[in-house]
Amino acid sequence: MKGSVIYGPRDVRFEELDFPKIIKPTDAVINISATCVCGSDLWPFRGINPITQPTPMGHEYCGIVEEVGSAVTRVKRGQFVIGSFFASDNTCPTCRIGYQSSCQHRELMGGAQAPFLRVPHADGTLVATPEVPPDDMVPSLLTLSDVMGTGWFAAEAAHVQPGKTIVVVGDGAVGLLGVLSAKQMGAERIIAMSRHASRQKLAREFGATDIVTQRGDEGVARIKEMTNGLGADSVLECVGTQESMMQAIHSTRPGGYIGYVGVPHGVELNGQELFFAHVHLHGGPAPVRRYLPDLIGLVLKGKINPGKVFDLTLPLDQVAEGYRAMDERRAIKTLLRP
Amino acid sequence: MKGSVIYGPRDVRFEELDFPKIIKPTDAVINISATCVCGSDLWPFRGINPITQPTPMGHEYCGIVEEVGSAVTRVKRGQFVIGSFFASDNTCPTCRIGYQSSCQHRELMGGAQAPFLRVPHADGTLVATPEVPPDDMVPSLLTLSDVMGTGWFAAEAAHVQPGKTIVVVGDGAVGLLGVLSAKQMGAERIIAMSRHASRQKLAREFGATDIVTQRGDEGVARIKEMTNGLGADSVLECVGTQESMMQAIHSTRPGGYIGYVGVPHGVELNGQELFFAHVHLHGGPAPVRRYLPDLIGLVLKGKINPGKVFDLTLPLDQVAEGYRAMDERRAIKTLLRP
Repeated sequence: MKGSVIYGPRDVRFEELDFPKIIKPTDAVINISATCVCGSDLWPFRGINPITQPTPMGHEYCGIVEEVGSAVTRVKRGQFVIGSFFASDNTCPTCRIGYQSSCQHRELMGGAQAPFLRVPHADGTLVATPEVPPDDMVPSLLTLSDVMGTGWFAAEAAHVQPGKTIVVVGDGAVGLLGVLSAKQMGAERIIAMSRHASRQKLAREFGATDIVTQRGDEGVARIKEMTNGLGADSVLECVGTQESMMQAIHSTRPGGYIGYVGVPHGVELNGQELFFAHVHLHGGPAPVRRYLPDLIGLVLKGKINPGKVFDLTLPLDQVAEGYRAMDERRAIKTLLRP
Repeated sequence: MKGSVIYGPRDVRFEELDFPKIIKPTDAVINISATCVCGSDLWPFRGINPITQPTPMGHEYCGIVEEVGSAVTRVKRGQFVIGSFFASDNTCPTCRIGYQSSCQHRELMGGAQAPFLRVPHADGTLVATPEVPPDDMVPSLLTLSDVMGTGWFAAEAAHVQPGKTIVVVGDGAVGLLGVLSAKQMGAERIIAMSRHASRQKLAREFGATDIVTQRGDEGVARIKEMTNGLGADSVLECVGTQESMMQAIHSTRPGGYIGYVGVPHGVELNGQELFFAHVHLHGGPAPVRRYLPDLIGLVLKGKINPGKVFDLTLPLDQVAEGYRAMDERRAIKTLLRP
């Protein structure tokens, strides 16, 4: 089979790979129905994360179970399943408190931009839908593997509640799905920070009540103006740079909450500044496994349609163009079909 | 009148000061019943915070109202009152959400180590007891001005709940009262990090179930051992150094909570490390004004006796010895009587 492999900055190739096999009895192999390019895939693509060797890419996936190991009992051949970007056993103490992305036996997924994928800890990682879903639901179900669950975690970590004022920093797919999540959680006012027309439009469709185009200190000043000088109750930080993190902190009211899910790159927080900002901070790799059952339900009932973030669909063999389109911000998120 | 003035590192003098006057109609002047030396007073005393000019010291106070300005309506001459180390109007949007120590018109108190003190925003800042309390309750009531409220905020920010496992980093007065607060909030297991016999004893008296004497990475390893490798549910950081903050972060389980109240000195948090630690972080200057009514009630009913942290009582004119005793850790906290 052929899948995507990154060799260096801006060098993603579609090339021959070994067919995945069951290695441990707790593994499964799935036949990928759809995969996609993650915002975090752009870090190595842009040369910001080092690439030490050719690396199979992709960690967002859903598909049909092809084969299971001898110890797998909950997942069966032929089921449609979705799993997190971190495989987790779902039984260790960390999983049991709902932080499966810090599972004591977690394994970071890779190689999902391919026709088939080995999934470790299959019983813990994968959640099956009641039946094989219609094809038009596959994009929305795919988002639950990472991007939608990450937006949901951002909103939950930012303590979004009915009646509150929310700011979302970052208009990538995670930020946009943070808007959708905040709306689902009953936020009254959702301010999306965005200067791209197509993203503003989708933000409004997902529930944003206001758009702010300014960034940095100007963006903060605008948020303060809109909130009686106080700042927002909750801010979702969905980028991961020093500027976006400081913008999030400064846009939050004293006693307010920041949920940060953009993997920090070069971010350093000054202790005293954070102290006097008086904010709550929570974030990290989203425990999307925890949310899978509920979010699958919302998608299947048609309550949410997070698949709208895919504004470019390509056959898998054009994966390199999928990266380029996102890198150049021509696409919000690229769906890939094997 | 005479009060304490700091001139430079280890140079605290007791010298003649102007008698405080009503400057604004919202001011009050109080006759100090008791004051004390704060752990944060040791930062300038040790030369860590710069001293640019001779500065009257002290921000913890309680006493009898001597005089009020023409706009003061809630506080009356003759009442026994307690106020926070930050004066606050208690009416601005920040105060109304309970973060009075970030009041939009806050003023940092100073000059409380003296017989009389001017208090700005008297109506917002001061809380009166129902009647003038007996003298033996004054030390406990004094702690509500800062140290007890700060320990309480640490526990609240760390989301202490019944049945949970708590770690307290720092065995100064704030840490010890963090132990007391966690006990009041129903924590099941309270682990105090301390290597000083007298402080260990008081920690146990306040509710600590375990004492850990190791620090840094060794301390973290011990906490992990005691919590099935997981870490504590809640950690109170009551020091403010890089080492203590990292010890707190590494002692917390994924999804756990850190309440940090030690004013950070030289603390820098690496964004990526914090991200993967998966912890909740909240802290800052404690909004002790919010807690005053409830904590006054607990003291007057005899439910808590935080005044036990004062293991040295001196007449006000020996204030310099009060600083030295705390600096050399001969005393946990020094009570000063004018």
